[in-house]
Amino acid sequence: MDGLSILSEIYRHIGSSTGSYSFIDSLDIGRSRDLIFLITIASTKTSTIPGVSIAGKTPKDTLYTPALDVEYLVAGKPLTIDTIPITPDGIPTPALVSRSLMVSNKISTLVVDSGSFIEPKIPHIDLPSRIPGESIDTGNALPEGTSRKLYSEARVLGESIGYDRVVFIGESMPGGTTTAMAIMEALGFRARGRVSSAGPNNPHDLKWGIVSKGFRCAGIDPPVDDVFSAIDRVGDPLHVSIAGIADGAISSGGRVVLAGGTQMCSVLAILRRLGVDYRGRLAIATTYWLYGDRSSDIQGLVNSIDSSVPIYYTMIDFSDSPFDGLRRYDEGYVKEGVGMGGYMFASLVLGVPLEGIKRSIYSEYGRLIKYRKV
Amino acid sequence: MDGLSILSEIYRHIGSSTGSYSFIDSLDIGRSRDLIFLITIASTKTSTIPGVSIAGKTPKDTLYTPALDVEYLVAGKPLTIDTIPITPDGIPTPALVSRSLMVSNKISTLVVDSGSFIEPKIPHIDLPSRIPGESIDTGNALPEGTSRKLYSEARVLGESIGYDRVVFIGESMPGGTTTAMAIMEALGFRARGRVSSAGPNNPHDLKWGIVSKGFRCAGIDPPVDDVFSAIDRVGDPLHVSIAGIADGAISSGGRVVLAGGTQMCSVLAILRRLGVDYRGRLAIATTYWLYGDRSSDIQGLVNSIDSSVPIYYTMIDFSDSPFDGLRRYDEGYVKEGVGMGGYMFASLVLGVPLEGIKRSIYSEYGRLIKYRKV
Repeated sequence: MDGLSILSEIYRHIGSSTGSYSFIDSLDIGRSRDLIFLITIASTKTSTIPGVSIAGKTPKDTLYTPALDVEYLVAGKPLTIDTIPITPDGIPTPALVSRSLMVSNKISTLVVDSGSFIEPKIPHIDLPSRIPGESIDTGNALPEGTSRKLYSEARVLGESIGYDRVVFIGESMPGGTTTAMAIMEALGFRARGRVSSAGPNNPHDLKWGIVSKGFRCAGIDPPVDDVFSAIDRVGDPLHVSIAGIADGAISSGGRVVLAGGTQMCSVLAILRRLGVDYRGRLAIATTYWLYGDRSSDIQGLVNSIDSSVPIYYTMIDFSDSPFDGLRRYDEGYVKEGVGMGGYMFASLVLGVPLEGIKRSIYSEYGRLIKYRKV
Repeated sequence: MDGLSILSEIYRHIGSSTGSYSFIDSLDIGRSRDLIFLITIASTKTSTIPGVSIAGKTPKDTLYTPALDVEYLVAGKPLTIDTIPITPDGIPTPALVSRSLMVSNKISTLVVDSGSFIEPKIPHIDLPSRIPGESIDTGNALPEGTSRKLYSEARVLGESIGYDRVVFIGESMPGGTTTAMAIMEALGFRARGRVSSAGPNNPHDLKWGIVSKGFRCAGIDPPVDDVFSAIDRVGDPLHVSIAGIADGAISSGGRVVLAGGTQMCSVLAILRRLGVDYRGRLAIATTYWLYGDRSSDIQGLVNSIDSSVPIYYTMIDFSDSPFDGLRRYDEGYVKEGVGMGGYMFASLVLGVPLEGIKRSIYSEYGRLIKYRKV
C-alpha cells in the first residue's frame, strides 16, 4: 500500500483514546525505526484458585499456559506437551493470532521469562531473578527484594535492546488481571471492578475477595509508598518486569507499546509511581474486544493513572470467519493476550490491509485444525 | 558523515578478502536494514588444560570468563565476582572494546547462553539444551544428541529474530580455537596449525595433541559424515549454536556477520557440511590483528571451506593509546573475542569515523581504570 492508503487503513481500523495519532506517526515503523516484539511470561499461583482464570483447561493447567503459549508462538507447535492452550470450552489461545501475524508480517519476536512455572522449550530470555509468584491472597507473593531485582534486570534488557527501536511488550500470565488489580489498588489507583477477564462473565467479586484477603494478610493499607514492597506482597513477577523493560527501552531512546489489556494499566501504575518520564514515548495497544468490553474499563483505569497515555484499539472482528472457535472471540471470549492486539496494531501500522490480516489468521487456524483438533 | 565520507572511511579502514565490498553495500545498515548483535557464550573444559587458553587469570578461571565478559558487556560491570576478565599478564578482555562501541553507537546487543559454566547475572537468551562441554580430549564432549538439539533450538532463535535484519554473532568461549580446530578437522578441513590464539605464542602442538587424543578416544577417522555426531564427540556447545542461529536468520530473510576469528571458520564448516545455502548472505568480520596474524591463517581456513565467503577486517590500531593495556593488543595479545572486530566493523559501516571509534574505546578504558585496577 502507498502512504495515503496506509493512513486511511489506520484511521479506519485503529481507534485512539486521545483522538490523536501523533504517537503512531512518531513511530515511523518500517521507515526510520525498527520494531521488536517481546512476549513476557510468568506464572502466579493466583490462577489456580478455581474461577479466577479460564486460560487453561483446568485451574492447574493455567500454570503451564505461558510456556505452551510461547512454544507454539515461536516454534509453531507446543513442545512440553502436545496441546495448544484452550479454554475449558475449547476456544484457542490468542497466541494463534499473534503467531499468524508474526510470521506473515515478519515481526521479530523474543520471549522473556520472568517466572514461568515451567521453562519453555524454545530459546528465550531469562531474567536471572525469575520466579513464579505465590497466590496473592497469602500476602506474600514474592520473596522480599525480588521485584526490585526483576525491575533492575529487566531495565538492563530494555536498555540494551531499546536504542531508537519501537519495543512492543505483550504478556502471557493467567491470573494476571487479578494481580494487576492488586498492584493498582495497593499503589492507590481504583481498579476494583475495572479489570478485564478472558471469559464473558467477569468474576469481579471473586477477584476482589482475593485481593482484599492479600491486603489483610500483608497488612497493606493503600496507598503504599514503597512500590517494590507492595509488589513483593500482593503482586507478581510479570508486571514489574514489563515496567522495567519499558523504563530501560525508553531510557535508551526507544518507544514502547504495551500490547495488552487492563493488566498493562498496572505496568503504567508502576512506572507512574516510580516517577519514570515516559511522556510521548509510551502507548497501550489492544483489541476493541477489550477496549469496548462492558465488564471492564481500561479507559477508566488509564484516566485514573495518566490520561495522557494513548490507548490504541484495533477494530477487527471475526464475524466472517469460517471457524467457530474464532467467532467466539466476537462474543467476548479471550479478548486479549500474548500481544494479540499489539500484533494487529503493528501489522496495520506496517501497512498490511485489514483483509490481509484476517487472511493470515484464518489460514493459521486452518493449519492448526489440520495439525490437531484445537 | 555524508554518504561519500562513510564510503571513504570504509575503504580506508576495512579490508576485504575478496576485494569486493558488495556484501557491505547489501547490508544497507542504518537505512533500510536494522542491525542486532548476539553474543553467544559457552564453556568447554578444554580451556582448563594448562596452556590452552590465556582468557582468564588461571586455567580454572577461564570457565568463568564468558559469564563475566557478558555481565560487564551488558551491565557495565561484572556481577558474579567483582573482576573484569584479564589475561595472566593483566591485559583486559576485548569485551571492553565491544562495550564501548555498543554503548556509544547504540548497537542493540543480546546474550545467548548455549552452555556457560555459570549463569550470567544479566538478562540473556537461554537455549533449552545448553550445557558446558567436556574436554574434547575425552572424545565425549557433549551428551549424544545435544548438538543436534542445540542447532535446532538456535535455528528457531535465528528465524524469529532474523527477518530482514543484519544479525551479527560474536562469541566468548575460552578454548574455542582448539575445539574449532577439532570440528574442522573432523569434518575434513585442514585446520592444524591454522587456528589463532589469544596470546602471541600460539601453542599449536599442544592443541593438536588434544584434538588427536580426542579423535583416538572417539574413534574418529576424518572426514566424518554425520556433522552432529562429530560435534557431540569432539566439539562444543558454542559453534553449533552459532551455526544454527545463522541458518535460521538467513532462512527468514536476514543477513549474517560472523563476528570473530578462526573459530568462526568452524561455524562456516558446519554450515557448509549441512548444505545450508548462505550464498551472498554471510560474511566474517574480524580485526586486522587476527587477519594479519602470522601464527594463524584465517584466509587459508576460509579458502579450504568456501572462499566465496568474504572476510572483512578492520584496520584499527592502538599505537596512540594512552593505556599500556590497550597497546599490548598491537603486540598480538587478545586479537579478537566478544565480537570486538564485528563491533568495529558495524561502527564503521554505521558511519562512525575511526577517530570516534578510538575515542569511545579509550574513554571506556579510562572509566574502567577509575572503577578498578584492570
